[in-house]
Amino acid sequence: MSLSMYEASIPVLARMLDNLSGILKKAEANAQARGIEPKVFIESRLAPDMFPLARQVQIASDMAKGCAARLAGVDVPSWDDTEASFEELQGRIAKTRDFLKSFDAAQLEDSETRTVVLKMRSGEISFSGRDYLLNFAMPNFYFHITAAYAILRHNGVDVGKMDFLGGV
Amino acid sequence: MSLSMYEASIPVLARMLDNLSGILKKAEANAQARGIEPKVFIESRLAPDMFPLARQVQIASDMAKGCAARLAGVDVPSWDDTEASFEELQGRIAKTRDFLKSFDAAQLEDSETRTVVLKMRSGEISFSGRDYLLNFAMPNFYFHITAAYAILRHNGVDVGKMDFLGGV
Repeated sequence: MSLSMYEASIPVLARMLDNLSGILKKAEANAQARGIEPKVFIESRLAPDMFPLARQVQIASDMAKGCAARLAGVDVPSWDDTEASFEELQGRIAKTRDFLKSFDAAQLEDSETRTVVLKMRSGEISFSGRDYLLNFAMPNFYFHITAAYAILRHNGVDVGKMDFLGGV
Repeated sequence: MSLSMYEASIPVLARMLDNLSGILKKAEANAQARGIEPKVFIESRLAPDMFPLARQVQIASDMAKGCAARLAGVDVPSWDDTEASFEELQGRIAKTRDFLKSFDAAQLEDSETRTVVLKMRSGEISFSGRDYLLNFAMPNFYFHITAAYAILRHNGVDVGKMDFLGGV
C-alpha cells in the first residue's frame, strides 16, 4: 500500500551515486581524449559564486550519508573534503556507497516520524523524517548531482540524460 | 510505518513547481533591472546541445503531469510547448499545479504496483509504479528544475539554494 522509508531513500541514493560515478568516468576519459588537464573539469563552475565540480560531488556525498544516518538515528560521519582528482572523487563515491550499504530496512522503520534536527547558518531546523527526506535531503541530493552533470556538459563532455538516469 | 505514493509524489512536485515559479519571478525582475531582454534568459542554454530555459520548464511540467496521471491510471494530458515569455512559463507552471491539485490520495493508492508503460525512442519500457516514481519521474523532474536554476545562475541571476529548496 505504500513505500517504505528505506525504499524511498537508500537504494535511490545508491543508484544515483553509481550514475554519478559513471558520469565522472566519462568525464575523465573525455579529458584524456581531448588532452585537457583533469583539474580543469574538477575546478570548473557554472558561475563564479557556485561550487566547482569536486565540491558538488562532495555535497552529494554529504547529502546521501546525512540522509541515511539521520533517518536511522545514528551519528553522521564527518569526512574531510580533500578530493582533488577523479580517482579521489571516485573513492569518495565508493566510500559513500559502502556507508549506504551498511543500513538495512529495519533501521529506517518508522523514520518518517523521527525528529531530524539540522544546524543551519540561520539556526536549528527541525523536520519530521518524512519532510526531511522529501523536502530537504532528496532535492538537495539531486541538485548537486545535476549540477555536477551540468558543469561537465557545459565543458563539452559527451554525457547524456541516460547517464544521469542510469539503466531504466 | 511508511510513505504513501501520494505523499512521495504530488505535494513534492507541487512544492518544487512553486519554487521554480519563484525562481522565474526573480529571473524576470533581474532581467528588467539589468535591462536584458527576457528572451535572452528564456532562450539561454548551458551547452549548444542542451535545452534552453523554456524547454527545461516545459519538461519539468511534463514530468509532473505525467507522474500524477500515470500513477493514477488516467490519460496524460497533451499540452503544446509554445511558452516563450516569463508570463507564459508562469502560466504553464500554474496549469501544472492545477492539474496536480485535481488528484487525491485515494487515486494513487496501490500505485506502487501499478504497471506504467512509457514509449521511449528505443521502444516501450515497463515499470512498477514504485520504480517509475523513484527511478524515472523524480530524477527527471529534479534534473530539469535544477537545469533551469543553473541556466539562470550561469547568467548571473541572484537566486540561491533556498530559492530552489523553498521554505524549510
